[in-house]
Order: sequence, then structure tokens, then C-alpha cells
Amino acid sequence: MVGPFGGTTAATLLRAVLAHPERIGDPAALTVNYAAPLADAPFLLEARPVRTNRASQHWSLVLTQPDAEGNAVTVCTGSALTAIRRETWSGSELPMPNVVAPDRLTRRPPTANLAWVDRYDIRFAEGSLHHDAVSPADDSISRVWMRDEPPRPLDFLALAAKSDLFFPRLWRRRGMRSPAGTVSMTVYFHADQAALDASGDAYLLGEARGQEYRHGFFDQRAQLWNAQGTVLTTTHQLVYYRD
Amino acid sequence: MVGPFGGTTAATLLRAVLAHPERIGDPAALTVNYAAPLADAPFLLEARPVRTNRASQHWSLVLTQPDAEGNAVTVCTGSALTAIRRETWSGSELPMPNVVAPDRLTRRPPTANLAWVDRYDIRFAEGSLHHDAVSPADDSISRVWMRDEPPRPLDFLALAAKSDLFFPRLWRRRGMRSPAGTVSMTVYFHADQAALDASGDAYLLGEARGQEYRHGFFDQRAQLWNAQGTVLTTTHQLVYYRD
Repeated sequence: MVGPFGGTTAATLLRAVLAHPERIGDPAALTVNYAAPLADAPFLLEARPVRTNRASQHWSLVLTQPDAEGNAVTVCTGSALTAIRRETWSGSELPMPNVVAPDRLTRRPPTANLAWVDRYDIRFAEGSLHHDAVSPADDSISRVWMRDEPPRPLDFLALAAKSDLFFPRLWRRRGMRSPAGTVSMTVYFHADQAALDASGDAYLLGEARGQEYRHGFFDQRAQLWNAQGTVLTTTHQLVYYRD
Repeated sequence: MVGPFGGTTAATLLRAVLAHPERIGDPAALTVNYAAPLADAPFLLEARPVRTNRASQHWSLVLTQPDAEGNAVTVCTGSALTAIRRETWSGSELPMPNVVAPDRLTRRPPTANLAWVDRYDIRFAEGSLHHDAVSPADDSISRVWMRDEPPRPLDFLALAAKSDLFFPRLWRRRGMRSPAGTVSMTVYFHADQAALDASGDAYLLGEARGQEYRHGFFDQRAQLWNAQGTVLTTTHQLVYYRD
């Protein structure tokens, strides 16, 4: 992939917001734009509250790294919304799909050249790349159980990272791997701290599917549920592809 | 609604990108964060190219207005990606729904207090707020034909504005109107100039549906097709609601 750390990078940007002394509320929205591959080198991350309302706050995010001449160049940009959540009418139009339980599935084997994948226990209930996508598929749906490895209690940063855990839908659709990389991702957080606490360190279920593929870019949407069937995040991303 | 010009505001931000002398390529992604209601007053809009790659360019957007003391305060932030598109494998997982043609439907009557609505010829094929949503609905799907009034050839700015043409899904779901306003919207552009030209000034079909509603925020997703069934944009937004 062009830059294979999109989820970790998104979590790192969100971390800067959560660590800021002026922050109010919990994450409601996060958009990260991947402008260039992140180098294995120091970076500077600025999280700036640009508007603070009574119960919500808008953030601007920029991640820079020095180039060969030492000049700071933009690697990621982003925005976030934090908000103080409160009780309202609630509802869902995303029922959790009925899939095989994780203890009846096997863990995805380690990936030779992608260390971050091994930080997750990933179990495909449907739409694995390895098993049933050797030929092109009419749709690109995957349903995947996921858990940190080693397990740890869920937090907002893990939700941001896990929202980018799905491989490019193009691979599933075409039944082949080809160069692809996320250029922009947005995560909407529906979980509050109580939902995080209820999720604990158990598996989450994620579902992802592609939408439209044309002229070098496609988009995919996804959502995460906890084991109780509560939607934790919905997410969308635009992905560059080459061929 | 809290600030009822979201689509027009998004188009205005995108206009600043398209008018910039350093711009390369056509719109691929646009995110707009609505930090505060736009006042009926002058505004300053800055569109800045923060990273230019060989075939793509990342933009940062800020719209400010003076407060009572004349200090610039942030009203909107945003980001955009423009890109030079090229031929690749293409595909879709968003087939156009089969609905009644616009000439067999009636135009939505004018809205007393929302002038922008009358700049569109809007015809509900399914999921009108007025006719069949007097009681709560299990899902919030609307399918809507839309055209500029008066008609004019489609461009990227109109696509940005029309991606926000859908009323809040909460209203459809609950069968009642209540205070709500978009806080963040992302549009992915799948149309190139050839698709715009093919669309001409004919009706577009839009479909929108809500996803998750909880603790004062819900999200909705939507897409636009031209009359030939080509997907032009996919879009997602997070909406604040009060009760």
C-alpha cells in the first residue's frame, strides 16, 4: 500500500486533540487527509482549537515532517469535532449482521511485511481476501471480527485506528491486489465513554463495502459494532488506486 | 434549521479552490466543518494549497467573519483534494434505484422561510416529508429528483451544493421536525468533466438515509446519479440535533 499506517496516523492525530488542555467533550467527528507517505522520522503535530462553542469544539490538525533540506512539509491535514454528549431520542438504521462468532473462526495469519496488522486479532466472518476472493466479486462486503493483540480496553484512539482496519475494497472486488492508498478518511463517533466501557476488551464487528470506483479513486464505507450490537463508529474513505 | 445554507456554503468554499491560480486537477474530495452559523455579512475565505503532488493537491480552507468587536472568528473550516483523473478499471456498487420519472411527479411547493429551496426543482419519488412521514418510519430513505431552477448545465459547484439538498433524516425517521444542523459534511466526487457534460441540465436522482442517531448527533449518507445512472458524488454528514 502507498502508506500503510492510516489508522495509526488517524489515532495519533486524535491523540493530540484529546491531550490538549483546552479540549471540551469527546470525539464526534474526525477527518484525516493523507497528503504524502509518513517517513520513519520525527514529526510535528499541531492540534489547534479554532472554534469553541458551549458544548462543542472544532479543531484543525496539521502534521509536518522535515524534508531533505530541513524545511517542514505537510504530510497530513485534518479536522476534528469534540462535543459534550447528552441524552436525546436515539435510533439506528444499521442493525448488526448475523455472523459466525469469533471463537468459531481462525485468526488471520501474520503478514510478513506489515507489522501493524499483527497488533490485531482479525477474524473474517465474510469476505476474506484470502479464501473466497480469488475471482472478482459482485460486491466487496467484508464482515470482520477485530480485537487488539494483546487485548486492552477500548478507547477513542482504538476506535479511530480500527475504522481504517479494512483492506482496500478494490482488492476484494477485483480479486487481486494492486497499489492503493487512503487519501482522505472521515470517522463519526457514536460511542460515548459508557459504550466504550461496555465494549471492554471484547471483539468488535466491522463491516466495509466499496461504493464507486472510477478514474483512479474509489470510496468505501464501514461501521463498527461492539459485541452487544451497539454502533460505535461509522466511517468513509476515499482511496487512490493506480490501474 | 441551525444554519440552513450548508450546501451553498460548501459550494462557496469549493469555488475558492477552483478559482485559485495554482490549482491542478478537478475536485475529488471536500470536507466542510460548520463551526458557527454564517452571518448575513461580509466574509473572508482562504483556500491554501498545502501539498502539491504530481497528480493531486491538498487544500486547507478557512472562512472567517468579524465579530461585534471586529475580530475575525472562524465560521467554517474545511479541506479539499483535487486530482488529475485518468483511465483505470472502473466499477460501481451503487446501482441507480428504479423510481418514477420526474415528469410524472409534482414539484415540491415553495418554502415560506427558506429561499434557497426555491432555487431547486425538487420532486420526491419516495420518502417525502410532507406526504407519508406523518408517523415515524422504520428507515429514513428518501429518493429525490432535483434540478436547478432555472435549469443550467451541471458543474462541480452544483454537485457540492446538491449533495446537501436532503432534509435531516431525523425528521423522516421520527415523522416530525425538530432543530437540527449539519456540523460536518464530506463529499467524494466521482464525476469528471465528461460526466458533467453528459448530465447537462437534466434532473439528478439523489438517495439519502440516516445511519445512527444518538446523544445529540446523527449521521446520514447520500449519493447522486445523473439520468444515465452514473454516480456523480457520494456524501456523508454528521448532524447535530437537540431533542
